[in-house]
Amino acid sequence: MSEGGGAATPTEGRADADLGTVYLVGSGPGDPDLMTVKAARLIESADVVLHDKLPGPEILDEIPAEKREDVGKRAGGEWTPQEYTNRRLVELAREGKSVVRLKGGDPFVFGRGGEEAEHLADAGVPFEVVPGVTSAIAGPAVAGIPVTHRDHASSVSFVTGHEDPTKEESAVDWDALAATGGTIVVLMGVGKLPAYAAELRDAGLAGDTPVALVERATWPEMRVATGTLDTIVDVRDEAGIEPPAVTVIGDVAATRDRVVEFLRNDRDRGGEA
Amino acid sequence: MSEGGGAATPTEGRADADLGTVYLVGSGPGDPDLMTVKAARLIESADVVLHDKLPGPEILDEIPAEKREDVGKRAGGEWTPQEYTNRRLVELAREGKSVVRLKGGDPFVFGRGGEEAEHLADAGVPFEVVPGVTSAIAGPAVAGIPVTHRDHASSVSFVTGHEDPTKEESAVDWDALAATGGTIVVLMGVGKLPAYAAELRDAGLAGDTPVALVERATWPEMRVATGTLDTIVDVRDEAGIEPPAVTVIGDVAATRDRVVEFLRNDRDRGGEA
Ligand SMILES: C[S@@+](CC[C@H](N)C(=O)[O-])C[C@H]1O[C@@H](n2cnc3c(N)ncnc32)[C@H](O)[C@@H]1O
Ligand SMILES: C[S@@+](CC[C@H](N)C(=O)[O-])C[C@H]1O[C@@H](n2cnc3c(N)ncnc32)[C@H](O)[C@@H]1O
Repeated sequence: MSEGGGAATPTEGRADADLGTVYLVGSGPGDPDLMTVKAARLIESADVVLHDKLPGPEILDEIPAEKREDVGKRAGGEWTPQEYTNRRLVELAREGKSVVRLKGGDPFVFGRGGEEAEHLADAGVPFEVVPGVTSAIAGPAVAGIPVTHRDHASSVSFVTGHEDPTKEESAVDWDALAATGGTIVVLMGVGKLPAYAAELRDAGLAGDTPVALVERATWPEMRVATGTLDTIVDVRDEAGIEPPAVTVIGDVAATRDRVVEFLRNDRDRGGEA
Repeated sequence: MSEGGGAATPTEGRADADLGTVYLVGSGPGDPDLMTVKAARLIESADVVLHDKLPGPEILDEIPAEKREDVGKRAGGEWTPQEYTNRRLVELAREGKSVVRLKGGDPFVFGRGGEEAEHLADAGVPFEVVPGVTSAIAGPAVAGIPVTHRDHASSVSFVTGHEDPTKEESAVDWDALAATGGTIVVLMGVGKLPAYAAELRDAGLAGDTPVALVERATWPEMRVATGTLDTIVDVRDEAGIEPPAVTVIGDVAATRDRVVEFLRNDRDRGGEA
């Protein structure tokens, strides 16, 4: 590696040594104790931490204000938030900074981390991926629900609930997901719950299929609400469940009732929302 | 909770205070830095750590020998390994021990953690679930493959490759998995790769669908091999890929080629197996 600074020429011919590294880091579901050892260390050593709100207040509040940059709310400007983030990551790396791009859960699970990785590689910026504990697994788990189970679920599918399932061009095939016979975990799926619950019933899932909603999993305000495919919309409304939350659909969701009395996860008061 | 000791009566009426807690802990894919802060702390403070081989040598070798108990190889005895483990967890908790049940990846992803939780609850033993970074996400990620992608994959399914897909009573519906249009990650799927690759082609997945094998992800000996649904069996054989490995099937698997030149994950030498 070459030593020293060197004038900042635009892009080509730039030696790796002049560039900072970007770390695409998962912060886990929100409890700081569920960060990886590596995530905690990189946040400590980074020059800049780019984040949105998803990592949650307990983790974000511990990061010194002078190295935090919130890229989560930059809508309506010249770029989309994602374009802004991509551009900013490259910019900071070209200033030689060590940059942590902190994302809730795992960076490659519905976090647009893949797009960021591609953008960095296209710009010639070295990057490292630091996987995290995803809310899609940890959310159900801390509520007493195993996403797979030898007797009930040989597969688990994570899917975005963000798309309108009635739209012709919807990329999500709810029929196929129902047909897998495995557990379905929906992320970003609080608002469109009525639509995809109906799709899944139409696809042949029984109305009494157990369903659980886990809101702010591992946060101090965590809440759990349970029902069935037939009742879950009412359950959501009565409990007032809000994002971020995961929806767990399948027989495994009933495990909570069987084990909750002895479940001692700090932040699960064992009660229903 | 009642205070104090009290004689150790068999089961009923036993106060919580007499019982140790069992922690069902994920150790992540193998790199000790990808353990959660909580997993590292619990291993440190536990009286006993029950484990099999999956956490990997780097993590296991750091645990003091006097508190390690390997429950991974106890086949052929009076109980199956799983029955033995269930029984031993309850036994240790009743001795008042603080017990870590350490599992590779996440404890509730194909790890029989759900069964252990049920067994503990049935026996009246308090337990806590400590989610971990699963190899199903981290394996692809550290090889430069995002399991979801806005342009290529609105869902991801994790499935066991352990079952014989030609068996009538197979619980895995490969047709349905193919029909989701999302990424498929197969665990325990090195040996049966020829069978399920054929099933997926029969189900209509294109022969040129990108596929990657990631062996010992995040271990010092990590290896990656890539191909297509048509070529992957030969790729596996030529590279001599062995368990533990994950198989990633879907367009996202091609992301590796696009980004690998700039990927700086410590243990990925960027080369192919
Ligand atoms: C854009 S996705 C990002 C997912 C994230 N990368 C992960 O692996 O957890 C945002 C969605 O993740 C889920 N989510 C994230 N954190 C959560 C938490 N602590 N509790 C429940 N759901 C959460 C919610 O479904 C939310 O709408
Ligand atoms: C019984 S399953 C347990 C999975 C684990 N609970 C997890 O979340 O990663 C064992 C399978 O996990 C996968 N696996 C575990 N660790 C791995 C690693 N470091 N690299 C690749 N695959 C791994 C392999 O497919 C292996 O056959």
